[in-house]
Amino acid sequence: MRELDYDELEALAIGAGVLGTGGGNHPHLELMCAQADYRRGRRIRLVDPDELADDGRVAVVCIMGAPLVTKERLPEPQSICRAVRRMEAHTGAPFDAIMSIEIGGENAFFAMLVGMELGLPVVDADTMGRAFPEAQMASFAIRGLEVAPFAIADIRDNEVLIARAESATRVERIGRRIVVELGSIAGTCTAPRSGAEVKAHAILRSVSRAIAIGRAIQAARAAGGDPVAAIVDGAHARLGFTGKVEDVSRRTEGGFVRGTVRLAGGGSHHGTEMLIDFQNEFSVARCDGALVASVPDLITVLDEETAEAIGAEVIRYGQRVAVVVLAADPIMRSPEGLAVVGPRAFGYDFDYRPFEELAR
Amino acid sequence: MRELDYDELEALAIGAGVLGTGGGNHPHLELMCAQADYRRGRRIRLVDPDELADDGRVAVVCIMGAPLVTKERLPEPQSICRAVRRMEAHTGAPFDAIMSIEIGGENAFFAMLVGMELGLPVVDADTMGRAFPEAQMASFAIRGLEVAPFAIADIRDNEVLIARAESATRVERIGRRIVVELGSIAGTCTAPRSGAEVKAHAILRSVSRAIAIGRAIQAARAAGGDPVAAIVDGAHARLGFTGKVEDVSRRTEGGFVRGTVRLAGGGSHHGTEMLIDFQNEFSVARCDGALVASVPDLITVLDEETAEAIGAEVIRYGQRVAVVVLAADPIMRSPEGLAVVGPRAFGYDFDYRPFEELAR
Repeated sequence: MRELDYDELEALAIGAGVLGTGGGNHPHLELMCAQADYRRGRRIRLVDPDELADDGRVAVVCIMGAPLVTKERLPEPQSICRAVRRMEAHTGAPFDAIMSIEIGGENAFFAMLVGMELGLPVVDADTMGRAFPEAQMASFAIRGLEVAPFAIADIRDNEVLIARAESATRVERIGRRIVVELGSIAGTCTAPRSGAEVKAHAILRSVSRAIAIGRAIQAARAAGGDPVAAIVDGAHARLGFTGKVEDVSRRTEGGFVRGTVRLAGGGSHHGTEMLIDFQNEFSVARCDGALVASVPDLITVLDEETAEAIGAEVIRYGQRVAVVVLAADPIMRSPEGLAVVGPRAFGYDFDYRPFEELAR
Repeated sequence: MRELDYDELEALAIGAGVLGTGGGNHPHLELMCAQADYRRGRRIRLVDPDELADDGRVAVVCIMGAPLVTKERLPEPQSICRAVRRMEAHTGAPFDAIMSIEIGGENAFFAMLVGMELGLPVVDADTMGRAFPEAQMASFAIRGLEVAPFAIADIRDNEVLIARAESATRVERIGRRIVVELGSIAGTCTAPRSGAEVKAHAILRSVSRAIAIGRAIQAARAAGGDPVAAIVDGAHARLGFTGKVEDVSRRTEGGFVRGTVRLAGGGSHHGTEMLIDFQNEFSVARCDGALVASVPDLITVLDEETAEAIGAEVIRYGQRVAVVVLAADPIMRSPEGLAVVGPRAFGYDFDYRPFEELAR
């Protein structure tokens, strides 16, 4: 267990943006909330998964909602706190720690804000290693752990508990409808997880990974270096393309932001044109007709100069970007994982191949 | 407390149809289920509200869903039983009796089926004295009692609990979305009511009223008399029109069946043309331009020969019908009641006037 430094907050925001792969929203506002909490004397205590007692109780939380609404309203960690309290009332037992369902985007920070609000440590792990749009795409669900009971709360006086559900997908669908009724944004807490379950089935040390990515980018910026290269230098990451945004088609469909980004290359060895589809997150990247990467691997689009992550809902004509591809966690690349987060789960008619293999 | 006779089951079905005012579905299938239960030796025990202990715990239940779906699928009282058990688990206390949220239509019978399934008596009361489309239109909600917690379950393995809600209307809206996700039909159980609350705020002895209406119709049929006249003879009921269905416009809108029925009169003293609007239930009746009756008073359309109730979703060209108007319960006619179930609550721009007054 260690306290995060004030300086690590911004690094975490940068890294969570990169791991958000275009979705999950950049945690600008959440970063400011966390910094304000620090100035009021609060601190984030990060606990390594190995430090958890096997029977310790972990609350897995997130903000569920439409990306645009989470940008319109100020961060509401209180809604998650109420979902956590509702789950405690339902199970009759208090939680020992908080964990984010996803390290990508704003939800990385919501776990931190909730931890400070409730005085609980935050586990250095998540269930996606990135951002994904739906609840059944969590590693716990992939490994067969029940998502229900699942608590949903807002900042007014509404609290709903999905006590039982026939499947993880049904939890997602029921939950999504409830969230829409609550204004398309709400706090959620999934079924309590034991420390043993976290150690066995979570994406471990992903908070530290996000901070490390952020620190590398910060260091390169400070040194006048290339911040994109700074994170590609790491293992399991490859620069897929550099170029200019030529066109974006974007539509809201079934509660998701879907569309395609077209990039024109600068004549580099990476090719002349890249098309990147998104379904909240960037899902498939093709270069001059050839597949470069697909879910569950991470396709992240960064500002070419600063390596600041660019969201699928804000990317626009004229931006000069670098596309970096990162390896998904082995849980996501397993057959059970690919059944839920592979290209076919996103509606594509091809099988997953690791981006390293595609690059050969 | 008394057992209902086998013969009373059909009388209850006929009377519940009349009190359904075009909505709530005619309980044909539910009657057959109850008769089958009787042949298996089960019995409905009807308990008078006065017999309830003040601290007795009453489960107020219904099937919530789209009218057409409840016709497509066989009756599923087990879904309500699961909602009742979920509510017991949530509150930590068992129920002593079952009560229907509405006496009109199929829900009158679901309370009976659930009572037999769970071995609990059924209270001779409901919360509407008729059928209404939404949960906040219950007498308990009108009297300011909380509708939440509110349990919803289906016959698969889905159970949702609205633990808290900012208003009765929000419970209705959240609940409606959940029900749609579950296939547009589910069983529900509202907040436990004490015996004292039932005595003070329910529509009392409405099961007996429905049975009495049904018996009067049966007796007139058997005697070769006029079954419509048999129920108009009663207090607080008036024959509003007789004629032929000339036209029906019907559309599904916002989860409801809405439309208008046009009747042509037979030249009787009742006038030449009646228009009846419906929003699941018949809501407003006008004759030759003059208002005859509006919600919350009961507008019920009966087969002219048999006095069998005709639902708004099945009424069709050519049927010869009698329109009978019955007085709403005083709770529904109170200012608090009219705010929720008066004409303005159904989108009309006029104030409620009792049908007796309109008839003068």
